[in-house]
Amino acid sequence: MPHPLLDPLLRGSAPVRRRAMAKAITLLESTRADHRAQGDELLTALLPHTGRALRLGISGVPGVGKSTFIEALGLHLIRAHGLKVAVLAIDPSSTVSGGSILGDKTRMEQLSVHEHAYIRPSPSGGTLGGVAEKTREAMLVCEAAGYDVVIVETVGVGQSETAVHGMTDMFCVLQLPNAGDDLQAIKKGVMELADLVVINKADIDPHAAMRAQAQITSSLRLLMLHGNPDHDWKAGIVWRPKVITISALQSQGVDEFWAAVSEFRAQQTANGRLALRRERQALAWMWERIDAGLKTAFRQHPQVQALLPQLQHDVAAGRIAAGTAARNLLAAQAGQAPAAIN
Amino acid sequence: MPHPLLDPLLRGSAPVRRRAMAKAITLLESTRADHRAQGDELLTALLPHTGRALRLGISGVPGVGKSTFIEALGLHLIRAHGLKVAVLAIDPSSTVSGGSILGDKTRMEQLSVHEHAYIRPSPSGGTLGGVAEKTREAMLVCEAAGYDVVIVETVGVGQSETAVHGMTDMFCVLQLPNAGDDLQAIKKGVMELADLVVINKADIDPHAAMRAQAQITSSLRLLMLHGNPDHDWKAGIVWRPKVITISALQSQGVDEFWAAVSEFRAQQTANGRLALRRERQALAWMWERIDAGLKTAFRQHPQVQALLPQLQHDVAAGRIAAGTAARNLLAAQAGQAPAAIN
Repeated sequence: MPHPLLDPLLRGSAPVRRRAMAKAITLLESTRADHRAQGDELLTALLPHTGRALRLGISGVPGVGKSTFIEALGLHLIRAHGLKVAVLAIDPSSTVSGGSILGDKTRMEQLSVHEHAYIRPSPSGGTLGGVAEKTREAMLVCEAAGYDVVIVETVGVGQSETAVHGMTDMFCVLQLPNAGDDLQAIKKGVMELADLVVINKADIDPHAAMRAQAQITSSLRLLMLHGNPDHDWKAGIVWRPKVITISALQSQGVDEFWAAVSEFRAQQTANGRLALRRERQALAWMWERIDAGLKTAFRQHPQVQALLPQLQHDVAAGRIAAGTAARNLLAAQAGQAPAAIN
Repeated sequence: MPHPLLDPLLRGSAPVRRRAMAKAITLLESTRADHRAQGDELLTALLPHTGRALRLGISGVPGVGKSTFIEALGLHLIRAHGLKVAVLAIDPSSTVSGGSILGDKTRMEQLSVHEHAYIRPSPSGGTLGGVAEKTREAMLVCEAAGYDVVIVETVGVGQSETAVHGMTDMFCVLQLPNAGDDLQAIKKGVMELADLVVINKADIDPHAAMRAQAQITSSLRLLMLHGNPDHDWKAGIVWRPKVITISALQSQGVDEFWAAVSEFRAQQTANGRLALRRERQALAWMWERIDAGLKTAFRQHPQVQALLPQLQHDVAAGRIAAGTAARNLLAAQAGQAPAAIN
């Protein structure tokens, strides 16, 4: 028997579908074992209906104007292109605060009430890996429900950019036209991931924005010489990351942004790299979740819990070599007698 | 009964000690289970005699002049300061080639034959983590045998810099005075790790070297504003990474280099950060080895090996969600019935 949410998600009227989406995402966010089993069953049934949407990652530090940009972009896609737009968020800080400010519907006043938009805040609680996995699964729900563009946004903190890059077809970095901001992004390895860099608030100081555009373009050229396999500046046959200037508040540049996105999508579809990227992402994601699961099982093992405090103490104090302690803990988990350590 | 190598290592005459070092390191590099057990026993017995040496990491891309610099530095430390110097290497490419070019004694003609120097090439074979662990253990052998300075060198490829940073008291990056080289180091996250940046071959173009010094100093200030907890540019109370210019071929600047190293060591010892760094390194190393061991055990599990090929195929083809596949594989390893995936 198929999952009761499957039919309303795929074939329901607009309001029925929207309620089913919310229920499905809530089910997938649950940590209860029976919910998890139902969720896995639902996901597997949804998968054949996913993959047609464009998955767009948008990153940028607080204050760069992400919400304003996403509202402008979303409304443009709905009105000018007749598309349905979903907005999801990954906010690792929601793990700490217990709630998310990202994806807060009050930030996107017009988009959030539009019938062709669906906005969902960041899941809260758990590790970044867990939060990211829930978002990844929510993305599949949106795709199965017929959304054409799924935007995943994240704040520029921690490793959340890597997670968003690992689930989207195109990764965009919003920047302010400030000197030094690009160095921060380079340092954190975010700039290297960017398929498109967007300098926002260009209306405030057009000259600064142009300087930033030139500087970031030059940095990207140097960085990409030995870099991202999706980009190749020398050969020119793959994607050459673009740097554009916009003013989201004035809705200036949204056209140009979408033109760049469409060009990227067409090119990467034609040369097969989009399909390859999704395959790589899915496999990397599987291994990421396996690693996380292995660590959790290890830390919860009774024998490990019994030995760990003293061994950590001895390793920190230099009484036992780190590798020896690791081998003893692994043997304890495997139910083997620990090697002599004295 | 203590390990037969313990006494010659700690109390042997110079030639006896040197032979014991080579035997001990060979034992620790062995993958045979009985050797591993003997090695762990020896390591634990050696540990109380380690920790007094300065552990110095030196990184730089091929061509930057690492060997020439280490030879000049090593001879200076032996002759002018009466120190005993060991040189180890981590070369991940030795895993591929089956042999190591790094630490090759022919590269350091005078140092390699000096009675107060000990040079050992990179272990070969296995993962970077495994190679790095063997080097870490060889470092402890050198310390117990009375070496005052242990230099760990690495080429600027892959993640080997992170491994060397994770086992040394001070991490130095050698650079050429070329525009763009510092961006590559920033991109790879290496510059951020540097306690000291050394611009080599300054004699060839002194003006270019000065420009590079100013540029890297400026980049480091921007990077360090929110960065490495061992550094703090604002407060000035912790270590402010230095950028110096040298010419290793002319033996110019080796004095200044050693003065900076000594200043760093004295300051970090006095403020307790050196001890803290070693504690953090040992614990991080333990967890790194545990993670590697968990992954190996997972991949070798018969049930995982039976299921993995088909599941990887299905995940890549989009027939099963990555998280669902991960949960099924983890359940298989744990001996639980897999969740229904159809």
